[in-house]
Amino acid sequence: MILTKPHFLRENSRHVKAEIFYQLFEPQSSTYTYLLGDPISGEAALVDSVLETMDRDLLLVDQLGLKLKYVLDTHIHADHITAAGEIRRQRAIKTGVSRHSQVDCADLMLFEGFELTLGQRKIHILETSGHTNSCLSFVFEGRVLTGDALLIRGTGRTDFQEGSAEKLYDNVHGKIFKLPPETQIYPGHDYNGQTHSSVEMEIKFNPRLGGHKTKAEFVEMMSELKLAHPKKINEAVPANRACGQKSK
Amino acid sequence: MILTKPHFLRENSRHVKAEIFYQLFEPQSSTYTYLLGDPISGEAALVDSVLETMDRDLLLVDQLGLKLKYVLDTHIHADHITAAGEIRRQRAIKTGVSRHSQVDCADLMLFEGFELTLGQRKIHILETSGHTNSCLSFVFEGRVLTGDALLIRGTGRTDFQEGSAEKLYDNVHGKIFKLPPETQIYPGHDYNGQTHSSVEMEIKFNPRLGGHKTKAEFVEMMSELKLAHPKKINEAVPANRACGQKSK
Repeated sequence: MILTKPHFLRENSRHVKAEIFYQLFEPQSSTYTYLLGDPISGEAALVDSVLETMDRDLLLVDQLGLKLKYVLDTHIHADHITAAGEIRRQRAIKTGVSRHSQVDCADLMLFEGFELTLGQRKIHILETSGHTNSCLSFVFEGRVLTGDALLIRGTGRTDFQEGSAEKLYDNVHGKIFKLPPETQIYPGHDYNGQTHSSVEMEIKFNPRLGGHKTKAEFVEMMSELKLAHPKKINEAVPANRACGQKSK
Repeated sequence: MILTKPHFLRENSRHVKAEIFYQLFEPQSSTYTYLLGDPISGEAALVDSVLETMDRDLLLVDQLGLKLKYVLDTHIHADHITAAGEIRRQRAIKTGVSRHSQVDCADLMLFEGFELTLGQRKIHILETSGHTNSCLSFVFEGRVLTGDALLIRGTGRTDFQEGSAEKLYDNVHGKIFKLPPETQIYPGHDYNGQTHSSVEMEIKFNPRLGGHKTKAEFVEMMSELKLAHPKKINEAVPANRACGQKSK
C-alpha cells in the first residue's frame, strides 16, 4: 500500500486540463449522447439525449455540480426519441434544434453562425444537412459533434427525411473537413465500438468521403446502399418533431 | 458552403493537445480496449485487447501510423480472450501481465514501480489486486486505466480468481484514490454506456468504495452479492493464461 505519493502522481497531473466533456452510449440505438460544460461557470449542455438514458445523464449532471442550460439535438432522429422535451418539463433549460426541423416546440431554432455560450466558452453551429435537412454539427473546444453527417469511417444514410447525398458531400467537404485537421470528431452513432476520430483521419481514411472520392462517386455509392427502413422511424420522427413529448 | 475559415476554426485548435488515446469497445463482454501512444516517436501500446476486435484495433494502429510496442493486460480476464498472443504471432511486440498471473508465456512480468516507455512518455504500473490477484492499473498522462479494480460507480467482483474484498479496498483507497483528484479513470468495462470518470468523482460517488464506506462495510457488501458465474470463465481463464493462444 503506497502511503507517500511517488513523483509520477504529481508529474501526471500537469497533463490534465480542466474540461468537462463526457461521451455516453445508449446501446439500443447505438447513440452517443454528449455532455459539454464550462468548468468555471458550471454551465452545461446535453447533445442528443435519449429518453431511455435520461436519468443516467441527469444524475451525472447533478453529481458534477453542473447547471444544465441547453439540451440540443443534432437533427430530428429516426432511431430514438429525444429526452429534450422531458428534461425541459423537469428543469429550466432551453431546447435547440435546426431552424430547418419542422419543429414548433423548441426554444431555439439554430442556424449556422449562431453561437451558444457556456460561461465564456462557445458552441459554434454548422449546418451540415444531407443525412436529413435539419442536421447540425456543434464545434466546441477543439471537438466537433457531427451527429449523423459524418460517422467514424462512415456517413449517415441519405435516403429519407429530405436526405441528399449531394448536400452531404458538399457540407462534409466544405465545412467539417475545413476544420483544423487535429479537431476531434465525435459522431452521433458508432456500430463498431469506436468512440472518436479526427478530421485528418477521416479525410485520409473515410471510405465514403475521404481519399479522392468525387461527388459523383459518393452519390452513386449512396444510391446503391440497400438499407432496411429504420424500425422506429414512424414512431421516432413524429415524437421528435414534438420534442420527444406526446403533447407540447 | 463555407469557403473561408471563420475565426472560431482557428480559435478552437488551440485547445487540442497532441495526444494519442483511443477507447474502443467490445460489446459481447462490454470490454474497453485502450490504445495509448506517444505522438513524437509513434510508439504505442494496446491494453486489454480482445480477440474478436483485434483486426479493428490493428487497423487503427496502422492508419494512425503507429509502431505497436506493447500489448498489455490489466489482469487474467474471465469474460473474454486476450488478443495479446495472436498479435505477438503477427508483429514484433512484447506482451505484459502481472508477475502474479501464473502465466509463463508473457514477455514482461510487470510489477509496481516498473515503468514502460512509449518514446519519452511513461506508463506507470500500480498493483491493484482484489478483483483477481493479478490486477494492475496503468497510469499514463493524467489518466489511469483501472481494469476491473475500479469501475465507474462500481468495482470488479471479488468472488473468484483469488479475489479479496479486503485487498481491493486497500488498493483502491491506498493507490487509485491517492492519485491527483483530476486524474481521469478509464475502466476495463462499463455496462451502462459510461466511458470515463475521475478520481474525485469516484471518491465522492462510488456506491461501494466512495463516501465514508469502511472496509468492513465494503467486505460485507461484496459478500452479499449474488452473482452468476461468468459464462466464459472455464474457457477464458486457461486461454488467457496461455496468452490467448491454444499453444504457446
